[in-house]
Amino acid sequence: MTEPALTPARRGRPGYDQETVLRRAIDLFNRQGYDGTSVGDIAAELGLTKSAIYHHVSSKEELLAAALDEALDGLTAALNAALEQTDGSAYDRLRTAVHQSVEILIRHQPAVTLLLRVRGNSPVEVAALERRRALDEKLADLVAAAVAEGAVRDDLPPALASRLLFGMVNSLVEWYRAGGPVDAATVADAVAAMAFEGLRAR
Amino acid sequence: MTEPALTPARRGRPGYDQETVLRRAIDLFNRQGYDGTSVGDIAAELGLTKSAIYHHVSSKEELLAAALDEALDGLTAALNAALEQTDGSAYDRLRTAVHQSVEILIRHQPAVTLLLRVRGNSPVEVAALERRRALDEKLADLVAAAVAEGAVRDDLPPALASRLLFGMVNSLVEWYRAGGPVDAATVADAVAAMAFEGLRAR
Repeated sequence: MTEPALTPARRGRPGYDQETVLRRAIDLFNRQGYDGTSVGDIAAELGLTKSAIYHHVSSKEELLAAALDEALDGLTAALNAALEQTDGSAYDRLRTAVHQSVEILIRHQPAVTLLLRVRGNSPVEVAALERRRALDEKLADLVAAAVAEGAVRDDLPPALASRLLFGMVNSLVEWYRAGGPVDAATVADAVAAMAFEGLRAR
Repeated sequence: MTEPALTPARRGRPGYDQETVLRRAIDLFNRQGYDGTSVGDIAAELGLTKSAIYHHVSSKEELLAAALDEALDGLTAALNAALEQTDGSAYDRLRTAVHQSVEILIRHQPAVTLLLRVRGNSPVEVAALERRRALDEKLADLVAAAVAEGAVRDDLPPALASRLLFGMVNSLVEWYRAGGPVDAATVADAVAAMAFEGLRAR
């Protein structure tokens, strides 16, 4: 996973680093919407002037791009790690992909929340949607491979199963609270158990 | 399910009825965000003047309230219909609730999409979130009852199972397309099959 690509020359103003600016910006984007957030709002949130913010970043869109890259890089790395597990079955790789995706989603929850709300209203958003679509296609292929080897039921269209599976994973951003009663590993186990074995008692 | 409660005295302008105004407003709210949509935008979308819109509705918030009521009334009716099935088990009622929820979500997709994006930024939104929370609690109770009767596995916390189950249901709003290759009944069957029996081949 790569670091968010913020303007490298503008580091080191005492009090705030670019990482802090990015975190606060992501929180504001999630709270009041990207379009409803100005650079002035981000500055006010940090107790800075607008020109002090421009010491850290060149535009609001740079912050959005860094946030979306963070989410997409994490999800891509998780999927690639699962796909590189070539000693097991497609089913093993799929189950690992589900587990890893839950962990990334929880570790990068604000950035992933922002990613999942992107509607394609700017070139940065369109590029993020394209990367997201490529991930979704790889996941659907993995589900189809697990169906083909006989490990996953074949009475559901694989594309539909894939959407429901990762719809369940992605729904975490709406309700998971870090520091709450349920930790990431418990959630990842529960998602995989429910998705693959189902809720019905055996 | 009740009709959206729009100002009753202002009906009947030729060309557009309140229902059309509401549908277009919901689409705009979903596309560009409620806060990012003005009454002027809604008027422009319909090719009307702002004052012509005020012939139909007294405020933007009235349209939001009508949309959120539509979604919540539908989901409440679906859940109540399932809970009134007293001849079966809690598991039967839960499975019916999942089925009915999927159908409501697909039938009222734009209004439910709006509901699921509400963050509590106004009294209307706070009231909608309270109604939504009450529904979530009833659903969690139903999952707990199905666990208690031994039909649903007891190794997942019922509150977590409930969140994942309806997280999967709600994720439909993000990708389901009316008129696409998968109809509502197929989706409802797939959601229930995956949630209760799991993806793993038997």
